Formats: sequence, C-alpha cells, structure tokens
Amino acid sequence: VKNLDEFQLIRHLTERVHAAEPHVQVGIGDDAAVLSVGVGEEVLATTDAMVDGVHFRTDTLSFYDVGYKAVAASLSDIAAMGGEPRHVLIALAVPTGQSVDSLEQIYDGVADICLHYGCALIGGDVVSTAGPLMITTTVLGSVPAGTALLRSGATPGDIVFVTGTVGDSGAGLKLLLEKTPLPADEAYLLVSAHQRPSPQVRVGQLLRQEGASSCDDITDGLANELNEIANASGVRLRIDRGRIPLSPPVKNLARRRQEAALDYAWYGGEDYQLVGTASPFVFARALSRCESMGIKITQIGKVEAGEGVIAVGDGDLAVLEPKGYNHMRKE
Amino acid sequence: VKNLDEFQLIRHLTERVHAAEPHVQVGIGDDAAVLSVGVGEEVLATTDAMVDGVHFRTDTLSFYDVGYKAVAASLSDIAAMGGEPRHVLIALAVPTGQSVDSLEQIYDGVADICLHYGCALIGGDVVSTAGPLMITTTVLGSVPAGTALLRSGATPGDIVFVTGTVGDSGAGLKLLLEKTPLPADEAYLLVSAHQRPSPQVRVGQLLRQEGASSCDDITDGLANELNEIANASGVRLRIDRGRIPLSPPVKNLARRRQEAALDYAWYGGEDYQLVGTASPFVFARALSRCESMGIKITQIGKVEAGEGVIAVGDGDLAVLEPKGYNHMRKE
Repeated sequence: VKNLDEFQLIRHLTERVHAAEPHVQVGIGDDAAVLSVGVGEEVLATTDAMVDGVHFRTDTLSFYDVGYKAVAASLSDIAAMGGEPRHVLIALAVPTGQSVDSLEQIYDGVADICLHYGCALIGGDVVSTAGPLMITTTVLGSVPAGTALLRSGATPGDIVFVTGTVGDSGAGLKLLLEKTPLPADEAYLLVSAHQRPSPQVRVGQLLRQEGASSCDDITDGLANELNEIANASGVRLRIDRGRIPLSPPVKNLARRRQEAALDYAWYGGEDYQLVGTASPFVFARALSRCESMGIKITQIGKVEAGEGVIAVGDGDLAVLEPKGYNHMRKE
Repeated sequence: VKNLDEFQLIRHLTERVHAAEPHVQVGIGDDAAVLSVGVGEEVLATTDAMVDGVHFRTDTLSFYDVGYKAVAASLSDIAAMGGEPRHVLIALAVPTGQSVDSLEQIYDGVADICLHYGCALIGGDVVSTAGPLMITTTVLGSVPAGTALLRSGATPGDIVFVTGTVGDSGAGLKLLLEKTPLPADEAYLLVSAHQRPSPQVRVGQLLRQEGASSCDDITDGLANELNEIANASGVRLRIDRGRIPLSPPVKNLARRRQEAALDYAWYGGEDYQLVGTASPFVFARALSRCESMGIKITQIGKVEAGEGVIAVGDGDLAVLEPKGYNHMRKE
C-alpha cells in the first residue's frame, strides 16, 4: 500500500460502503459510532476472523469474495438468533505490498452484501501486517427483547429441521481445488454457494416469530451444529439420513468422485443454512410460511431424551460425532 | 497451540474473563451475544486492531500488556464519546507455535482491564495465522441518547483542554527502546503509561454531563488530535505551548536526551488522555468537579474562527501540523 496514508486509505475504502441506516446517529469518522435502538429491542453482537491460508485461499476466493464472505459469516450468526443485522465493523490487516486495487475489491464485496441485507458500515480499522491478509468482521443486530433463538431450547418431541440444501459450499470448495468435471450450471451453483453464501436472515426471523425452540447456523458442518444443539439443550437428536436435503449438483459431484454425498453435508461446513428445532405445531406453521415465500425447509429428524446425535437410515444406526461417525451397532 | 482444539481453547481462554454484566442476556457460547439497552440510551461501537511488529513489540510489551492495552485503546474511544463501556469482543490471530501460556497471559490482561472498567467479554474468535500475533478488539458502550461527545462541536470562544499529562506513553516507549538512565520511580511512571494506559472513562462522562463541545482521545499524539477537532469542527485552535501539561519524568527524560519535551506530547501518541473544547462556563464547572475528584484537567488554548492548529509561545507562532511544525512567521 503506497501513496495513501492510513487515514486517507480508510476513508477511501469505507466510502465504497453504505454508511447510512436509520439507526446510525453517528457513523464512521468519530471515535465510535453512535447507534439508536428501538424500544423493546435487544442488541445482538458477533465477531468472526478470517485469515488467508487458514480460512480461505486467494486462488479459490477473489478479493471481492473475501469481503463478501467475511461479512456473510457474521450475518449468518445474527440470522441464527432470529435477528435483524444492521451494523458492520471491519478490521483489515493488509500484507506489505498488497495493492490498493485488491483492497477496493474487498470493500466492494463488503459493500454489496451490506447493501443486500440493509446494513451500514459503521466503523473499522485498516492496519498493515508482515503476515497474511486477515479480515475481522463484527456485526451488530437487533431482536425483540427476550425472543432471540438460542441453541439451548430443543425439547423431546420437537422436530429437527434444516433450511435450503446442505453440503453445497463444501462441494464447491472441492470443485475449486480439484477441478472435477461437472456441467457448468451445476458447478456454478456449488462454487457460488462457497464463494458468496447467503445468510438466512429472513428464515431466521420467521422461525423466531413462529417460536422455534432452537437454532444454529451451519458454519462447521451439519454434524457439528447438530451436536452443538444437542449439547446445549441436553437432548438427543435422531436424524434420518435419507431426509438430509442435498442438491442435485452435490449428488452428481459425489457420484463422479465416488464419495458419500452426505459427507459434504455432515462435514463440509460454511453452508450458512440454519438448523434447529421446533414443536410439530410450530414447524407446521413455519413450513407453510416458508413454502409461500419459496423458501425450502426440511424436517430431518426429531428430538428425544438423551444426549448426542444419532444418524439412522438404511438399517444402520450410528452416533454422529462432530467429526466422523461412530458406528455402534446395527439396528 | 497443541492438545486443545479450537473450541476448547476459546472456552479455556474466555473463562478467564468476567462474562457477566447487568446488560448481558446471553453471553459467549451461542451464535451471538444478546444485550439489553436501557431506555433512552444509544449504543457506542468501536474496533481497533493491533499487530505484533507494527503496533507493539513483544520486547516492550508483555503478553499480559498486549491484552490489557488492546482493550484500553477501544475503551478510550468510548471514553472520548463520554460513554460507559460495557461489552468487549476479542478476535485473536495466533501464530503457529505460540504457547497456550502466552495466550492465557493475553486473556489475563483482557480480564483485568475488563474487571477494572466493569466490562464483560461477550464474544470473540481465536484463529491461527502464519503471520504475527494480532488482536482485534471491539468495545460496545452506552450513552444517553443525543449526548455523545463528538469531535465536531468546537465553537470560537471555547476553551481547549486536555486531561492528565501528555507524552508519558511515548516517553515510556523511548525509554524501553533506548534504555536512557532515569530514576526508577520516573521510569516506572513512563513505562506504565506506555504498557498499561488508563482510558479516561470517568472524565469523559463528566465532560459529557457538563456539556463539553467536543472531545477526542489522544491515540496518535496531541498534534494529530487537535487537528482532528479543528477539521471536524471547522475552527482554528490556538494552543499555548507553555500550558501543555508535561510530567516531571518526561521533562527529565527529554533534558537527559537533549530533546524537546513537547515533542513527546505532540507526536508521542497512545496517551489515551482526552483533549476537547468547552465554553468557559462549562469548563469552569468541569474543572471544579475534576479538582474535587483529584483529576487533572488543563486549559491549553482557545478556539478561534479559522482553520488548523496554531501553537504559540516564546514569541513564536507556528502551524502545528498532524506531523511536524510549519513555522510561518515570528509574532
């Protein structure tokens, strides 16, 4: 980075991103942002860090995607709480020699996803580093007081559900790394799911309104998130393998690679779909509203007394660990 | 980092820090924190990133100090708005091979400053990096709606003030780097100011209550912050060099090194004292309250129509640029 001092650079980059939003009283440029909060609302706050070479590779993500996806990860946390994302802060660590052009692309990605979700950039920091590119996002959101969806509310008798399809992002990454031949439209779907995931903000709010009992977003793979809910709620989740919603491209890729398609869902991660639980009554209402909005939501299992996660199907029953199966016995 | 997976490590580290605070409805452990906000309050938000080798050196700051000081920098932003800091999020990028012990020390520093200022750790992320240690802090605070102190309210006729003494932190860093002999008590004062600065939260709130017209915290040196206020407010600040409050150790160090003591104040930075403006009436009241609380606050100049910052004294008048003097004419 040359020819621009730190303050000029921050101004230059942040000008690319929408800074206004009805709750922003004071935005970027003072010591801190000042935000109003509606009566009866609570504030949601989450932070995520992404490091080049650890969380992404610049040969599989463009700089634009890096900005887009970093914000997406934090928006997804707000979605999982049933909240409305509003405000974004970005801290960017820039390697020596990184071009201003590439930083502009990162902020263009930030700008587009902020615009799409109605969020404003309200603060940040741009610092240099001798290490890899790193982007830390903090997203603030809002939720009616006392209604945030937690991981801990699942109750025996509830239905376990997941939104959209799962495994697409992990399959997209595999495709980018190993260049398995796939029809262009299928490849596009998977790669898009990996590079520009869509946080499920609207469904999260719908699930909160209807009264889902727990919710989590799929960051580290469905197997991990199901275990998070089971542990936090003190229950067992019994998951029907045959009901896991896989997209045709995931199935096609797995077939061509002779892999188990479900493994993309269990362990792929970064789908940023929502997984959660709801009473049958609540789920029926949520399903009906989702269908009318063209949003896919699928029952994949049920909540029982006990602990951990059990995957069933094809006459097999196995404990689904956060990483890997533990086949206990045949049913 | 070995023998602990990422989730265990985050839990292990964050357990060291106070997580409860009256406004925390849901803290660390879910997708996002849930925070209540008092009626009539606005939320303050600020983010700062510190990188090893750029913003600090581990030969002049202990790991404990790194954690302490990173949070201090963000608390100081809240102080400059006249706010009450409440909630802290930490994103830590950990170099390969960094010991868990050193991470514990960082979080002990975070814990101590959070406890001192009544803040709770509500979220964070710990990631590995091939690069240097980096800590990104986000602090959320609160302020009565419409009362946040901005940089932009200075008006001709106002008094310019600064809290505490300035230049101590820069002098402390110089002392650490160049080992100039100084009496132990003086060295301790300067080094402490550098390693464990004290954000001026109480004075910031007092200045807000009394109605100061502008405020900024001294991050990048007094010369820079004065220019920030002058630019944001569209006024000229006339500063009396002889009134800049310098501590005896700074004067002593400068004398021994044959340097201009004032340069530590102008350009040293990281003092995290507050600089601002207030009407003479408001300043008189603030001064009286500060004196009764044992807090030092000093008039250092006044606000005029015009632009920029002028430093006067000893028959000399010069434009004080954010970096360096520009001597224009003799008075």
